[in-house]
Amino acid sequence: MVQGLKKIAKFKLSKKLIRINPAQTLSLGFLILILVGTLLLMLPFATQDRHHLSFIDALFQATSAVCVTGLVVVDTHTTFTMFGQIVLMVLIQIGGLGFMTVGILVALFLGKNIGLQSRLMIQESLNQLSMEGMVKLVKFVIGFTFFIEGIGAVILAFRFAQDFAIPKAIYYGIFHSISAFNNAGFDIMGDFRSMTSYVGDFTVIMVLTSLLIIGGIGYTVVLDIVRKKSIKKLSLHTKIVLIMTVLLNVVGTVLIFTLEYNNPGTLGPLGLKDKLLGAYFHGVVPRTAGFNSLNMGELTLSSQFVTMVLMFIGGGSGGTAGGIKVTTVAIIFLAIWALIRGKEDVNTMGRRLPKDIIYRAFAITVYSTAVVFITLFILTITEAAPLNVILFEVISAFGTVGMSLGLTPDLSPVGKIVITILMFIGRVGPLTIAFALARASKKQPPYRYVEEKVMIG
Amino acid sequence: MVQGLKKIAKFKLSKKLIRINPAQTLSLGFLILILVGTLLLMLPFATQDRHHLSFIDALFQATSAVCVTGLVVVDTHTTFTMFGQIVLMVLIQIGGLGFMTVGILVALFLGKNIGLQSRLMIQESLNQLSMEGMVKLVKFVIGFTFFIEGIGAVILAFRFAQDFAIPKAIYYGIFHSISAFNNAGFDIMGDFRSMTSYVGDFTVIMVLTSLLIIGGIGYTVVLDIVRKKSIKKLSLHTKIVLIMTVLLNVVGTVLIFTLEYNNPGTLGPLGLKDKLLGAYFHGVVPRTAGFNSLNMGELTLSSQFVTMVLMFIGGGSGGTAGGIKVTTVAIIFLAIWALIRGKEDVNTMGRRLPKDIIYRAFAITVYSTAVVFITLFILTITEAAPLNVILFEVISAFGTVGMSLGLTPDLSPVGKIVITILMFIGRVGPLTIAFALARASKKQPPYRYVEEKVMIG
Ligand SMILES: [K+]
Ligand SMILES: [K+]
Repeated sequence: MVQGLKKIAKFKLSKKLIRINPAQTLSLGFLILILVGTLLLMLPFATQDRHHLSFIDALFQATSAVCVTGLVVVDTHTTFTMFGQIVLMVLIQIGGLGFMTVGILVALFLGKNIGLQSRLMIQESLNQLSMEGMVKLVKFVIGFTFFIEGIGAVILAFRFAQDFAIPKAIYYGIFHSISAFNNAGFDIMGDFRSMTSYVGDFTVIMVLTSLLIIGGIGYTVVLDIVRKKSIKKLSLHTKIVLIMTVLLNVVGTVLIFTLEYNNPGTLGPLGLKDKLLGAYFHGVVPRTAGFNSLNMGELTLSSQFVTMVLMFIGGGSGGTAGGIKVTTVAIIFLAIWALIRGKEDVNTMGRRLPKDIIYRAFAITVYSTAVVFITLFILTITEAAPLNVILFEVISAFGTVGMSLGLTPDLSPVGKIVITILMFIGRVGPLTIAFALARASKKQPPYRYVEEKVMIG
Repeated sequence: MVQGLKKIAKFKLSKKLIRINPAQTLSLGFLILILVGTLLLMLPFATQDRHHLSFIDALFQATSAVCVTGLVVVDTHTTFTMFGQIVLMVLIQIGGLGFMTVGILVALFLGKNIGLQSRLMIQESLNQLSMEGMVKLVKFVIGFTFFIEGIGAVILAFRFAQDFAIPKAIYYGIFHSISAFNNAGFDIMGDFRSMTSYVGDFTVIMVLTSLLIIGGIGYTVVLDIVRKKSIKKLSLHTKIVLIMTVLLNVVGTVLIFTLEYNNPGTLGPLGLKDKLLGAYFHGVVPRTAGFNSLNMGELTLSSQFVTMVLMFIGGGSGGTAGGIKVTTVAIIFLAIWALIRGKEDVNTMGRRLPKDIIYRAFAITVYSTAVVFITLFILTITEAAPLNVILFEVISAFGTVGMSLGLTPDLSPVGKIVITILMFIGRVGPLTIAFALARASKKQPPYRYVEEKVMIG
């Protein structure tokens, strides 16, 4: 009897979540938020004198903030009043939190074994089908976010107090802590400078990178670590995300360090400590915070390429990061490795990856690549810039990164609209696709056609 | 009893094919052929006076010929004696035929319903497990190849007779017919001119494009069309290849026509008829013949991009074309379309595509993209050229196309070796992967790990 009731309860939950469709809700919510943000940024007192924003520019900035992308057509510090900057900060915070909570909802709906439902708090609340449990979860997300952002803001404020007056230092600490944790990459340093003044500053670099890594790793991982004591008990998802995060950060740092070591425009003139800090920052930041401490325009083509790959990969699912996600890349790598060795099963760390998840990983990667290249093609027509500059901009927008080789302010009106749409697709697209894929695999069609093979490769 | 014997016979065939592994045989055969070709091209009388080839250059040229790529570090007409040119022609012919026959063997091994086994000749021979059947098939392939090449050579020779003396016209007819049918893209027009002198020549353009389309469409399609009378009875594979071929050629032509219409360096100065012929040639040739009738260096960035996409896609399986193949692209498109609409099954033209083939299509695409981008990264370090130029070169080598924005002769020694390896991987890789994938899906592992989900997207 109790079992029966539980089953009914579970079934109703699924039905309800299907009807709501969290991914669509997210899209709609973000659209509304972007439009409100656009209007606020167009208010006369949002911008400094003689800096009134056109609708397209305001829409671009608002989208960039809500989608925590960080691409800017105008310099944030020079153009906006404190009111305008706070609007951006709030958009970033709502955008980041909204994305994370919806991401967790989708995760809950999709998977049984991703380290979330296996533990007390959430499992119980879900089984009991209570809104209470959801609220509890959202409260935890908000609480954790503000807690980490608070720590970051305090340390940054102390550091900035060496350069600015106390109130300004506090304000700068809060703004950049929120921007970093949400992987937004917005800065108010002025003149598109980003963090170039702090390239060798241990405190600023370490605080910002810690914030963006924690924010970008995903709440499923954070929850899993918080709730489990031993490393062995961590879910496969958590293990993969942690390994990939370390791996990509190390590889990124080493590659940037090597490729830029003698570049007179970037690491060349710096001492070894500053070289290391600069390389570390630029190895970590592309996934997907989007600050920069080196002059982006001076990066070697090889470093630009490394950055593009990292931007495309992004961070963990269910966090503030963008990109196709580190798990997707890990799964694809494992799948191709298995295929090359002629293995049917794709195994890792004593676990087998489900076929449908491998399939989804491939689909998301190919879909994302297609979106990037279709946009790239459009921009080769509308913009007069070299391929690497346009491709960099496109991947940055799609991966919600915000790094740029300088094209953003020079975009044509059509280009601005295309990038605006791409930032939006880049943010809500992968989640929507993941959700659609998972739903599709649960449906059974009423009738099926006869199978027929086709030759490929 | 008879049934039992048949079963045993079938089983033995599979076993045997597994042991031989046609894909590995192909790789080995190609390697030997390339080395022999390299040595022949280094012979003193293979090159004109003062044009002796270094080992790296000879290896590059031989690989380019055997893999029917068509990239050249030296101009074929200016550098090679007639002996050297004939060596190249023979390498192209053996490379093309070898690839096609092995491709058909793999197709036979992999698929039941791809329009091959369903008909008399091949099905019977396979069921009877006779070498006789194989020989019959290879004979048909060789016969058909020489028949079509013969027609092409005759028409081209008549046309070239207007410009050259009769013996030269005949020789040029044969060389370019073989080069076109095998999608090799080698020319002996001199000074890297390729077909620029014939941009508006209806005969040359139509003969070359017809040859490369027929050669590139794949023998499974040719056989299917030859053996079946009505369109309705054609296999799904054949239908997809035909539709995609028409579609891509039309789209390619329209895009090049539009994007180059006013370009003073390409179509701009030409009359409408020449514009159409030039656009048609450049819409068709990238998949994957690699001739050019327009000045490649003058193409707009958008046209370069279109060309790169077409080069990456390539032609049909089991023919002389390269790339990831039109069927792979069609399947991916259909799969993503189904996913977006939340459908589990991927259907087209009243047939359902098998899950494992969709999976393979995604895997081949992602694998190919990865190979292209890893090579691109290496070349950004070793070569001093813009991203679009390097990317174009890499996709051209991987897709066995042979078009170039001019980088090939200027490649560094490391760059030449990298491109040589890539041409080889681009030719034998997809077939090897397709074969490995198909084998993997037939094996059952002795024990399996527990499944665990991971969050992606
Ligand atoms: K960002
Ligand atoms: K070719």
